[in-house]
Amino acid sequence: MPIAAVLLTAMAIPTQAQTPPARTYADAAATDPVTLGWMQGFPPAPDKVISFSGKSNGFPRHRWTFSHVRELVPTVSVWRGPGPVSALPRAERDIGGVPFVDADGTRRTFADMLALTYTDGILVMHKGKVVYEKYFGALQPQLPHAAFSITKSFVGTLAAMLANEGKLDPAAPVTRYVPELADTAYGDATVRQVMDMTIGVKFSEDYADPKAEVNDYARAGGMIPRAPDYAGPRSFYEFLTTLRKEGEHDQAFAYKTVNAEVLAWIVQRASGVPLPKLMSDKLWQPLGAEEDAYFTVDSIGTPGGGGAISTTLRDLARFGEAMRNDGRFNGRQVIPAAVVAEVRGGGDRAKFAKSVYAHLPGWSYRDMWWVSHDDHGAFEARGIFGQRIHIDPKAEMTIVRYASHPIAGNAANDPITLRAYRALALALMQR
Amino acid sequence: MPIAAVLLTAMAIPTQAQTPPARTYADAAATDPVTLGWMQGFPPAPDKVISFSGKSNGFPRHRWTFSHVRELVPTVSVWRGPGPVSALPRAERDIGGVPFVDADGTRRTFADMLALTYTDGILVMHKGKVVYEKYFGALQPQLPHAAFSITKSFVGTLAAMLANEGKLDPAAPVTRYVPELADTAYGDATVRQVMDMTIGVKFSEDYADPKAEVNDYARAGGMIPRAPDYAGPRSFYEFLTTLRKEGEHDQAFAYKTVNAEVLAWIVQRASGVPLPKLMSDKLWQPLGAEEDAYFTVDSIGTPGGGGAISTTLRDLARFGEAMRNDGRFNGRQVIPAAVVAEVRGGGDRAKFAKSVYAHLPGWSYRDMWWVSHDDHGAFEARGIFGQRIHIDPKAEMTIVRYASHPIAGNAANDPITLRAYRALALALMQR
Repeated sequence: MPIAAVLLTAMAIPTQAQTPPARTYADAAATDPVTLGWMQGFPPAPDKVISFSGKSNGFPRHRWTFSHVRELVPTVSVWRGPGPVSALPRAERDIGGVPFVDADGTRRTFADMLALTYTDGILVMHKGKVVYEKYFGALQPQLPHAAFSITKSFVGTLAAMLANEGKLDPAAPVTRYVPELADTAYGDATVRQVMDMTIGVKFSEDYADPKAEVNDYARAGGMIPRAPDYAGPRSFYEFLTTLRKEGEHDQAFAYKTVNAEVLAWIVQRASGVPLPKLMSDKLWQPLGAEEDAYFTVDSIGTPGGGGAISTTLRDLARFGEAMRNDGRFNGRQVIPAAVVAEVRGGGDRAKFAKSVYAHLPGWSYRDMWWVSHDDHGAFEARGIFGQRIHIDPKAEMTIVRYASHPIAGNAANDPITLRAYRALALALMQR
Repeated sequence: MPIAAVLLTAMAIPTQAQTPPARTYADAAATDPVTLGWMQGFPPAPDKVISFSGKSNGFPRHRWTFSHVRELVPTVSVWRGPGPVSALPRAERDIGGVPFVDADGTRRTFADMLALTYTDGILVMHKGKVVYEKYFGALQPQLPHAAFSITKSFVGTLAAMLANEGKLDPAAPVTRYVPELADTAYGDATVRQVMDMTIGVKFSEDYADPKAEVNDYARAGGMIPRAPDYAGPRSFYEFLTTLRKEGEHDQAFAYKTVNAEVLAWIVQRASGVPLPKLMSDKLWQPLGAEEDAYFTVDSIGTPGGGGAISTTLRDLARFGEAMRNDGRFNGRQVIPAAVVAEVRGGGDRAKFAKSVYAHLPGWSYRDMWWVSHDDHGAFEARGIFGQRIHIDPKAEMTIVRYASHPIAGNAANDPITLRAYRALALALMQR
């Protein structure tokens, strides 16, 4: 699979309820990208090169790629600004031995979980302090890693912030902001339906089907090669104008990456500010981010709203901590408390129950965040291959994790990771 | 001209003694990239899009592109590190009215020069303080701008620093570090000859000639499209192994971009460190750079040593100030004083006189820096379209400038810029 397809897959296939195939994969140690020597040497050996035009850049090569996206495709910076880096106070302890029982009934430790789910980096905050921070393989503290669909939670949060400022009306029709979508599935949809992904749109993300619309999306965005006689859309925006309705809006949660692309378009039209600058102005600068983040861009410079962001793990932690702490971080109200409350309140659980996410019973989706409605009020930003912001307000815990799991769908790691996170929350609460 | 070709041109055509064609160009105000609206809107209007596959991205579009290179091609970061930003103390004054007489005898002011030579940004340091800093068009203080062949001076400085540490022997044959070059023009060359560009190599940078080797170089690096049946080299390194000898080494200065690519290869082999990390470790971090810089990379991830760097103007000033101040900056000896002395001492003026640079009489080239040998000891790093570090030790002045001149060769701006810099030096010395 070309890197292009890997990136696309990562963006487009969400945390779907996918049963891990019977196929087994080499373990984390055996696929360590540094040990395997990807892209080392001047030049790297031919069989160690990872390039955008490569033919087989899936797992395990993506264990290198996810920490080096900008070296393969064009990107635009999310500037951290001129201010000082905000503090991340430390109170480190060894939590690797915290036990838990996974969904299969197997007894494991937190450290087991890290390797079993191909973790590239993990950072745990408890009561505002870093209690645990580990990097593996190609990831380093200063390197941005692909956040995949965590991108959607950034876009959803920015949309909710604009709504809070009165610059965006969730009740308004999508066409108030993007009239170009009048003759599409979004022609009779509201912004709120886009924000909560209750859109009835014909868009399949089934990669096994060469006729699935996700391939058209990828070609339009220049993410997979186009045939010489290609005459279809040549950008994300152009592709979005081709989407047709299927079913009705507002009936069920249906996770489709194109909704996040539409929301990114709406957000930029409503604010008049390019998404990377909006994220810099409203989040990265006030959070006191440590490093610039970045978006990949399509062939006309459009930053992807569905899965294009890369950030460092620490900066992801800053964002997560702001969400945990009612929007406050770095000594200021970065995100309005009302926005955080709206996210945490969740969406319509009945509509969520009609989706394919049977392994997330009782959850809902709001402003492009995943809300568990458990007794801790846990909520998440989720990206395929194991990317995660897991916030447990009751335990005063935020976990951020970047990973390069062989399997895209988070259903492959949820049976281990969600149990480990819960066990850690309980353990931290006892200290 | 595709953007690819623009980028390549910028890298490959050096500051050659090119007489500006009789053709006239719209002036700086009429070609302001913000006024012209390139890449504004969601999406930009079709005729305002600048993309890598575009058909006509030369001037005036490159006035936008040079400040946005990473948005068009893959890049690798030069990390500024975790430390504080070094101070650039300010003592601003209006030097725009400083008069000078250009090479044609026309009386002008410093401010005239800025517009006449399509300046994107200029920063003047005097006695260690910022006396003047201006941005125009697409450039902003935090945005890296294409440095073009100033890249070579970074690579040459790093090579001289490695030599100073005993990690690289300039007297050694190139093949000690890169045995792959044994059967090429570099098979009987020394590292010193590469550093000073006295290599006899068949390599034409004449863009008017479709058979010029520069086209092969560009195709190899993936900088211009390849035909479907292309079977030539697929990376810079592979291309370098095809270069054949022409004439003898050590006879004359002959500015050819491939020498800088060879030196970058040598530097990485000698140090064992990728060029972006080497530049971060040895320059960007100790200088206390304000922003990360970056290199564009070829299709196998090789950072270009000939013209691939983008930096902010302020960070270029930090590097220039270190070179002016015997290697000291940010309270430390960033570059060994002996290295700076070697650069300032210059190269062989007789060999330089045999080159095509008739408009730079008495100059020489050393460690990939241009040395004037004038009574102020001025020396420069030079990149096409007007990129410049101009250091005047006697006047205690460093000028850094990014520009987007319509004409690549610096011979098009030298008759104005060099006179303006000298006049400013004299004016500052009188204060």
